[in-house]
Amino acid sequence: MTRADILVYNGTILTMDDQNKIIADGLLAISGDTITYIGGDEKGSISAEKELDAKGGLILPGLINGHTHAAMTLFRGLADDLPLLDWLNDYIFPAESNMDAAFVRVGTLLACAEMIMSGTTTFCDMYLFEEEVASAAREAGMRCLVGEVLYDFPSPNYGPIERGFEYTESLIQKWQDDPLVSIAVEPHSLFTCSPDLLTTANKLALEYDVPLIIHVAETLTELAEVKKRYGKTPVEHLHSLGLLGPHLIADHCVHLDELDIKTMAEHGVKVIDNPESNMKLASGISPVPEMLAQGVTVGLGTDGCASNNNLDLFGEMDMAAKIHKIQTMDPTVTDAITVLRMATIEGAKALGLEDTTGSLEVGKKADVIIMDTDKPHLTPMYNPYSLLVYAATGNDVKHSIIDGRVVMEDRRLLTLDVADIIERSKEKSKKVREWVRIDRD
Amino acid sequence: MTRADILVYNGTILTMDDQNKIIADGLLAISGDTITYIGGDEKGSISAEKELDAKGGLILPGLINGHTHAAMTLFRGLADDLPLLDWLNDYIFPAESNMDAAFVRVGTLLACAEMIMSGTTTFCDMYLFEEEVASAAREAGMRCLVGEVLYDFPSPNYGPIERGFEYTESLIQKWQDDPLVSIAVEPHSLFTCSPDLLTTANKLALEYDVPLIIHVAETLTELAEVKKRYGKTPVEHLHSLGLLGPHLIADHCVHLDELDIKTMAEHGVKVIDNPESNMKLASGISPVPEMLAQGVTVGLGTDGCASNNNLDLFGEMDMAAKIHKIQTMDPTVTDAITVLRMATIEGAKALGLEDTTGSLEVGKKADVIIMDTDKPHLTPMYNPYSLLVYAATGNDVKHSIIDGRVVMEDRRLLTLDVADIIERSKEKSKKVREWVRIDRD
Repeated sequence: MTRADILVYNGTILTMDDQNKIIADGLLAISGDTITYIGGDEKGSISAEKELDAKGGLILPGLINGHTHAAMTLFRGLADDLPLLDWLNDYIFPAESNMDAAFVRVGTLLACAEMIMSGTTTFCDMYLFEEEVASAAREAGMRCLVGEVLYDFPSPNYGPIERGFEYTESLIQKWQDDPLVSIAVEPHSLFTCSPDLLTTANKLALEYDVPLIIHVAETLTELAEVKKRYGKTPVEHLHSLGLLGPHLIADHCVHLDELDIKTMAEHGVKVIDNPESNMKLASGISPVPEMLAQGVTVGLGTDGCASNNNLDLFGEMDMAAKIHKIQTMDPTVTDAITVLRMATIEGAKALGLEDTTGSLEVGKKADVIIMDTDKPHLTPMYNPYSLLVYAATGNDVKHSIIDGRVVMEDRRLLTLDVADIIERSKEKSKKVREWVRIDRD
Repeated sequence: MTRADILVYNGTILTMDDQNKIIADGLLAISGDTITYIGGDEKGSISAEKELDAKGGLILPGLINGHTHAAMTLFRGLADDLPLLDWLNDYIFPAESNMDAAFVRVGTLLACAEMIMSGTTTFCDMYLFEEEVASAAREAGMRCLVGEVLYDFPSPNYGPIERGFEYTESLIQKWQDDPLVSIAVEPHSLFTCSPDLLTTANKLALEYDVPLIIHVAETLTELAEVKKRYGKTPVEHLHSLGLLGPHLIADHCVHLDELDIKTMAEHGVKVIDNPESNMKLASGISPVPEMLAQGVTVGLGTDGCASNNNLDLFGEMDMAAKIHKIQTMDPTVTDAITVLRMATIEGAKALGLEDTTGSLEVGKKADVIIMDTDKPHLTPMYNPYSLLVYAATGNDVKHSIIDGRVVMEDRRLLTLDVADIIERSKEKSKKVREWVRIDRD
């Protein structure tokens, strides 16, 4: 009899591997941080300290949130249903200008609690005070790819942009051997970053062989601004600066033309779709079906909680599946399995983490979630992919394992004190009310 | 000290009345089936047998699902991401032709369990074997407006259409004094019902003073077919047959022109928006912002589980708020409170139940839900409407009261045996697999 550290049994395993292999009544064994066995349930053949009974539910890779601003949980519902510029100028910018490291830490811990409790095991972050984000993720036991946002104006964290590059470089060096945290270089956007900033950022990313992450073509305003300044589409502008490549992760990508998509595909650029945020801010709908048809790798992200307003990738999958159908008036596009792949293995590919996570395969790190399907809204089960994308919510995730560590069991978070984080978040929200002078509760 | 049967305390009451009055730290008392007190928490002043502590959460009217086919829960995920006609002809129609009363009963019980557990207290149904639907709703303790679907071809329930009218009439007579169940006359659509059928149905509805409910302008195919047959838009066709009036509830209303909307507003026609189903089937987006601007009463529905695939109105509210923003490229339309009103008081008005339910007001029947907001994804709370529409899911509903009866407490259903219903539903799903010959699990 073989030994393992953790056994997950009595569930249907959705591997999300290249063949989308499904194993009914499957058994998954974990030793250390690694998946060591996946197969039919010959439970007697392997023993383990810790055994998790999936009780007939679903066993799948942890979800990957390809783009968020985690600490913005503290701005959830602060201001909604407003024109973009009112939202930014009257609420988000004033609040952000008052932020400090402690604020970002609490907001990120709140985000990690929400993400783990809704099935996310890896997230990609762009925000301020990213050292706090990395260390909060570490405390939560989450896998992440994070980077300090860089732009032309002074940052409340690092000050002038030169210090921003230094800060990023120190993040890269500090976290380079961490099993959970990876660092990216993250210029904000084409309208907040000069060509000089962008090329310097790109050089830094290439030098350290880390991803370069940027918002691209999110709004019509951005598109118009970039065309006005540079006479090019955002993608053409990136191309002319030499930034296109397989290391580039482009968030949003709402307003692209056919040539932009072709160019991105040719250069192996990765894209993260954020349908809920793009809808809530009325930014537009990303041409995901065309990008997929051209072979672009597309992951899924929630964006921050100021424009979503949650981090539940199950809701995001449902939205992605439906919005791209209505966009094309074709009910066959972005089908359930395509969307679940965007939130798992394709998301991992987009972040350059496909050798580590995103699918259940022997040798990969053990990032696994177990879904409880013994509920009215998940009955009956004709097709597990459909059930996950169109009927489930994050609350249906029962257990979660990240890097071989059980981080949630029976919906109880084992790495974080949820009550304490909620209390600290409420305290921070009182500050936010003062900063933006709102009185409503 | 006054006596009451039930007291709900220690929560913020969202009344959803005409002024959208909010009562912080509110107290709500129920005697028999009726709300007898709403106000500030002077808890000592009223005593009750049953006291429900909202623990700082939200207290609001139960949600109203304005359009569904409840028993289609048993087809959840049976076939997705398919062209509409393949979906109907290869899956839904073959399955439905095999259905019987027992099947509809089990499917409706499953739906009621799901609806109560996600905050719905009233639903409006159109399907076959509606006697079973009414009696299943009664067993669940849910409020409903139901009617047998009528069309030109023979029904697996009543046979020829003449029997359909008799069946409907007998439903009306049988349930006329029921506190929970109301009956409507429900011709299916303009492309499945002859003008004769429609005018007879309308006569019956007017004779008994009950609503007339019909699918209207759901798809482009329907629009083309009605134009081809009658040279009119669906609304013009209804108008020419004399069916427009405040008793008419038009479901979907995706493909309307400006004149259609004006005509509907003039005649006081009610509309139910079903954004998730319309997106999933790629039917289109209903012009809800224009209808609201013209003063049309618009409620919200999930449609059936074959095209959604759940009955969670929280997800539907989120979708409604976002899809109409992207439709108009205006982030200010269908704001959170508008959408919550669609799922509560406006839905009640659409179904003609506004004197009974849809808002928390003294004298109305006690249909109340209590939300647990002590969770990471519902922290912080700057605006309760935003929190409900953009961040909450049905799982956050903790207690539910319908017609003065506690039907769910601490997420435990008190009226139905959930495990038994799930078991019976799985048995029925085996039959469905045989009917449509699918092998996958």
